[in-house]
Amino acid sequence: MAVPQTFALDAMGGDHGPEVVVPSAMRFLGKRQDCRLILVGREDAIAKHLPRWAAHDERVLIRHTSQEVAMDELPSKALRGKKDSSMRVAIDLVKQGEADACVSAGNTGALMATARFVLKTLPHIDRPAIITAIPALEGQTHMLDLGANVDCTAEHLFQFAVMGSEFVRAVQGLTMPRVGLLNIGEEEIKGNDQVRAAHELLAASSLNYVGYVEGDDIYIGEVDVVVSDGFVGNVALKASEGVATLIAQMLKRRFGRNLLSRLSGLVALPVLRGFRTDVDPRRYNGASLLGLRGIVIKSHGGADELAFEHALRIADQEVRSRVIARIEREVEAHLGEARALSLQPSARVSA
Amino acid sequence: MAVPQTFALDAMGGDHGPEVVVPSAMRFLGKRQDCRLILVGREDAIAKHLPRWAAHDERVLIRHTSQEVAMDELPSKALRGKKDSSMRVAIDLVKQGEADACVSAGNTGALMATARFVLKTLPHIDRPAIITAIPALEGQTHMLDLGANVDCTAEHLFQFAVMGSEFVRAVQGLTMPRVGLLNIGEEEIKGNDQVRAAHELLAASSLNYVGYVEGDDIYIGEVDVVVSDGFVGNVALKASEGVATLIAQMLKRRFGRNLLSRLSGLVALPVLRGFRTDVDPRRYNGASLLGLRGIVIKSHGGADELAFEHALRIADQEVRSRVIARIEREVEAHLGEARALSLQPSARVSA
Repeated sequence: MAVPQTFALDAMGGDHGPEVVVPSAMRFLGKRQDCRLILVGREDAIAKHLPRWAAHDERVLIRHTSQEVAMDELPSKALRGKKDSSMRVAIDLVKQGEADACVSAGNTGALMATARFVLKTLPHIDRPAIITAIPALEGQTHMLDLGANVDCTAEHLFQFAVMGSEFVRAVQGLTMPRVGLLNIGEEEIKGNDQVRAAHELLAASSLNYVGYVEGDDIYIGEVDVVVSDGFVGNVALKASEGVATLIAQMLKRRFGRNLLSRLSGLVALPVLRGFRTDVDPRRYNGASLLGLRGIVIKSHGGADELAFEHALRIADQEVRSRVIARIEREVEAHLGEARALSLQPSARVSA
Repeated sequence: MAVPQTFALDAMGGDHGPEVVVPSAMRFLGKRQDCRLILVGREDAIAKHLPRWAAHDERVLIRHTSQEVAMDELPSKALRGKKDSSMRVAIDLVKQGEADACVSAGNTGALMATARFVLKTLPHIDRPAIITAIPALEGQTHMLDLGANVDCTAEHLFQFAVMGSEFVRAVQGLTMPRVGLLNIGEEEIKGNDQVRAAHELLAASSLNYVGYVEGDDIYIGEVDVVVSDGFVGNVALKASEGVATLIAQMLKRRFGRNLLSRLSGLVALPVLRGFRTDVDPRRYNGASLLGLRGIVIKSHGGADELAFEHALRIADQEVRSRVIARIEREVEAHLGEARALSLQPSARVSA
C-alpha cells in the first residue's frame, strides 16, 4: 500500500499497561511493514519496554501524556478530568486525522464515553454499539451490542443490525451476511415489545434477515450477525465465558486427579494443546465500537501480548476495509429505506 | 415415610413420550419404594412400555387421557382446547390433591399457562418463575427466571429472589443462601431502572443479598441464587448450552483428527468419560415452576431416561422438603417486611 496506516495505541490502558502493549505492538509491526504506530502514554514507561531498534525506527512514535484513566474510574470523571490521558489523546489522534484507528485495553465505559464525545456518532446513528467475533461450530458469529446500551428501542436494534451486517460484509467479505435477532422461544408471542417491533423493521428491510435466534444459535454459526440490546448481549457473552472457564477447570481437574489420569493427559497433550488453541479467547480479542466517526477497538483489559496483537489486527482490517465509510453509506441507505416504508413511526416503541 | 408420595407424570410429553417417560419412571420407582406414580396419557401407549411387574403393582396407576399437547402448540390453544390432555390432567391431579407433584417434558409455554390457570399463584406472587440448578466451579447455582416472564418490574425480581432463596434453603438445606442480582458492569450507573430498583429492595431486605453479579458469576458458585428477568435468564442459559456443545464438538474433532490423536483419545478415555459425566446436562435436568400452589417440574423435551429420572428426583426432593409451604411463609414474611419499609411504592418501576 502506498499510504502507511497509523494506529494510535493507548499504551497505559489495561491491567498491564505498556508492559504488554509495547512488546505486542512491536510484534505486530514486525509483520506489518507498512504501518506506523503512535504509542500514547508516559514516555519513560513506554521507553522502558521499547526494544533498541524501535527507538530509532521512524514507524514508531511516542506521544507523551501526563494522565491515565483507571480501570474502575467513572466514565464521566475520566471525560471531564482527564483531557491529557493516554486514552483521550489516542482518540483525539483519530479525530485529528493523525491516526486511522485507536486501540485501547482501558476501561470500557470511559472508552465509549470519550470516543462518543470526541468522535461523535455517524449520521442517523443514535447510539454506538460494541461488536465482537465469537467462535462458532461453523466459522464465526458477530454479536452486538455487548454492553454499551442497556435499554434499546426497536430503532436502535435496527441500527445495530444495519451496522453489524455491513461490518461483517467489510471485514469478512461476505456478500449477504445472515442477520438474526436474539429472542427467547418460551412466550406465546415471542419476546418483548422492542424485539417484536425490531423484527417487523428487519423483516421489511433489504437486509438478509433470517428471523429470531435463541441463545444457543450464537455458537452454531448459521447466522453471521446476532443483534440484541447491550444488557442481554453482555450477559450472554459473560455467561459463555463463565461456562468455558468452568469446562476448562473440570477438564484440568479430571486429568490431574491421579497418576494414571495425569499420564493419559500427557499422552493426549498434543491434542489437548490443539483444543486449547481452538477455544483460546485471545484469538477473538478485540471488540469494535461501531457507529462512531472513527475506528476504536477495545481490547480485553487482561489481554496478554498475543491477545492485544489480535486487537491490533482487527484495527488493521477495519482500516483496510474502509469500514466506517461503508457503514455510513449503508446506514444512510437502510434508514432511508425504512423511512420510505413508513415503518419508523410504528417502531418508536420506547424501551 | 408413613404417607406415600404420589407423582403425576405427563406420559405423553416431550419428544419421546411414553417411550422414555414410562421406563424412566420405573427406574425411579425401583429406587424409591415409598412412592406411587400416576402415568397420565393414552392407556395403550403407556401399557406398551410398562414392564409386566408394573402392570400388577399397586404403586403404578394409569390415568387414561384422550388428548395431547403438541410441542409447538400455542399455550392459549392448549389451555382452551385440550382439557383432557395428559399435561392438563396431570396438573389437575395436583390441584385435586391426588398427586403431590407433577412432572412433564411437554411444551414449556403450555405447561406454565396450564399450571398457572389450574393451580393459581401463591398469595403476594404476581407471576410464577422457572428455576433450575446450574453446575458451578464450587457446587451449584440456582437461577431464575428462565423464560416465563419477559418484562419484569423490580417487585417481580424481588419476589423471584425471595422464592429462589427459600427454594434453595429447602432443597439444598442451606441456611442463608447468597442471592445475587444479574447485571452488567459496563454502564456508569449499572443496569436498567428495574434492576436498580430491585437492588434497593433486596439491599433493604433480610435476604442474604450479596449485590450485583455478572454473567460469568453464574458458573463460579460464589452465589447460590442468581435472579434475572426471564428474557435475560433464558438467553444466558441457552448461550451457555451453546458454548458447552461447541466445546464438546471441538474436543471430539481434535481427538478424531488422525490415528495418533484417536489413539491418545483411547488412552484418555476413562478421564474423558469422567469429564463427560461432569458436564452432563442430564444431571441437571428438571426446572421447577415456582410461585404456584403446587409442585410442577418441567423436564427438557429431549430428555432421555436418565434425564427424566433426574426431574422426578427433583419433584421428590421438593415434596419431601415441603417447599411450597415454606415459600408461601417466606413470601408472606418478606413482602410484609418490604411493605413495612415502605419500599413498595418506589419499587413500582414499570418494565
